Amino acid sequence: MHEAPSSGWIDGRAHFLPVRIYYEDTDFSGLVYHANYLRYFERGRSEFLRLAGVHHTQLLAQDTAIALLSMNMQFRAAARIDDALLVRTNYDALHGPRIVVSQSIMRGDTLIAEAAVEACCISLTGRAKRAPKLLVDAVGAYLDPTSSRF
Amino acid sequence: MHEAPSSGWIDGRAHFLPVRIYYEDTDFSGLVYHANYLRYFERGRSEFLRLAGVHHTQLLAQDTAIALLSMNMQFRAAARIDDALLVRTNYDALHGPRIVVSQSIMRGDTLIAEAAVEACCISLTGRAKRAPKLLVDAVGAYLDPTSSRF
Amino acid sequence: MHEAPSSGWIDGRAHFLPVRIYYEDTDFSGLVYHANYLRYFERGRSEFLRLAGVHHTQLLAQDTAIALLSMNMQFRAAARIDDALLVRTNYDALHGPRIVVSQSIMRGDTLIAEAAVEACCISLTGRAKRAPKLLVDAVGAYLDPTSSRF
Amino acid sequence: MHEAPSSGWIDGRAHFLPVRIYYEDTDFSGLVYHANYLRYFERGRSEFLRLAGVHHTQLLAQDTAIALLSMNMQFRAAARIDDALLVRTNYDALHGPRIVVSQSIMRGDTLIAEAAVEACCISLTGRAKRAPKLLVDAVGAYLDPTSSRF
Repeated sequence: MHEAPSSGWIDGRAHFLPVRIYYEDTDFSGLVYHANYLRYFERGRSEFLRLAGVHHTQLLAQDTAIALLSMNMQFRAAARIDDALLVRTNYDALHGPRIVVSQSIMRGDTLIAEAAVEACCISLTGRAKRAPKLLVDAVGAYLDPTSSRF
Repeated sequence: MHEAPSSGWIDGRAHFLPVRIYYEDTDFSGLVYHANYLRYFERGRSEFLRLAGVHHTQLLAQDTAIALLSMNMQFRAAARIDDALLVRTNYDALHGPRIVVSQSIMRGDTLIAEAAVEACCISLTGRAKRAPKLLVDAVGAYLDPTSSRF
Repeated sequence: MHEAPSSGWIDGRAHFLPVRIYYEDTDFSGLVYHANYLRYFERGRSEFLRLAGVHHTQLLAQDTAIALLSMNMQFRAAARIDDALLVRTNYDALHGPRIVVSQSIMRGDTLIAEAAVEACCISLTGRAKRAPKLLVDAVGAYLDPTSSRF
Repeated sequence: MHEAPSSGWIDGRAHFLPVRIYYEDTDFSGLVYHANYLRYFERGRSEFLRLAGVHHTQLLAQDTAIALLSMNMQFRAAARIDDALLVRTNYDALHGPRIVVSQSIMRGDTLIAEAAVEACCISLTGRAKRAPKLLVDAVGAYLDPTSSRF
């Protein structure tokens, strides 16, 4: 059976997700349109959670979605049509409603982009709320023990 | 004051919405990525409704969204970065939950794309439901009196 | 090694590609935004070509991209966040510059969407051109022997 | 005649572009999908250039596109379907290939998002190159005279 989309894999504290570059990802410059890297980063964060046992549908059933507070991105090299990229995701810290994530995108040994992300659990009315136990339990084992960002 | 985004204008039964082509709209072939024309068609349908007095937030407050049933598209010519396009939208028929729309996209005198669209009112659980009175009242005056598509 | 994105698999004449639904794919109705199905269909057509031995970069090196002429889509059921979909792609006919493809998207046994697609080889200046030998050789074995659409 | 898409307006050093939120912009949380703010920021940068006399097609004719080096974004409040937003863009500095831009998005008096952007002129092969005279002449009058970021 080959029927499930890949959720990537976890190695130590880091999650890795392969991403292919399609027509939809490029722009007329021939390179990947910069905003699309945020889509790949979000796929990485979502697949990490999936492998750790949390689906967005479960969060939704607890009136919870994840919204971004800030994102600091560096675009290091350009990706192109047909490229096979690898998204690395580390959940570094989780405190109350806030989540700190560090991510990168590689093509082989070439660093394509990096992101430092702060996110937040929200209710579907848009208000910040503590991360549900489901999320804390799933991500807890992967946090950075030396993190002092909060 | 120039602060509102343009909702285009209605001329007879037809609505017209100007659309600019940006980086985000193109792909590495140098042309507009085909799926993006569906975004412009949807903007046209939404702005027609807005000028006719219906906002999606009002429909939402009545547990109504609009989902597509079918779309028959012809791509006639290519659009490129910086192009100024004009989306024409006609609401042709409205019957129970179903909505029939015909649309085209022009660049000056050049036909870029055409679409025959069937849509449907749904509740947010995804079930078909009759078009709310709000929608019927707003669109009624613009329907095609000769339409016999239902 | 798990480092490559999946290109799906070919079974008989048909290619199958698993696709996961992310935040980026949905809209405020809670369902997948309709234009995004065109992105999955395009991924399916591209991965079929990749497995058959043709990369877009190779076509590009021969001044060839693939543009759509028409697309007839039926939206049969709604997909949602976290869904695992399967895109089926059949290349049915190839004649001069024109390519005929039929596609569907399933979630388990549920038909989500279908598309009848006509595409065309173009040069990067946007003109139609015969399909390069590379493409004809790769796709030839998978065409529909009973096709009489041209 | 109402046929041109709005390019917004320039007031002092700042450019303003109205943007409407459509189905395509939202996700299942009911809010605007975060990566889409980068699309509005890019539209703002492009329309500023257009009003200042530079079209991407002209840059392209000089083998120049604009790629991002870094982007530091703060998401301050959520936007929703039907919202009318206003993108403010300031070109602060231009030095060799590099461009520094500061941007914000408002909904009325509410700050939705802010971005500090570093971009770079590239050739279509992806290499950094000095900003063409066309660009320097157009943007020069709007730069921040106190900028010392380089």
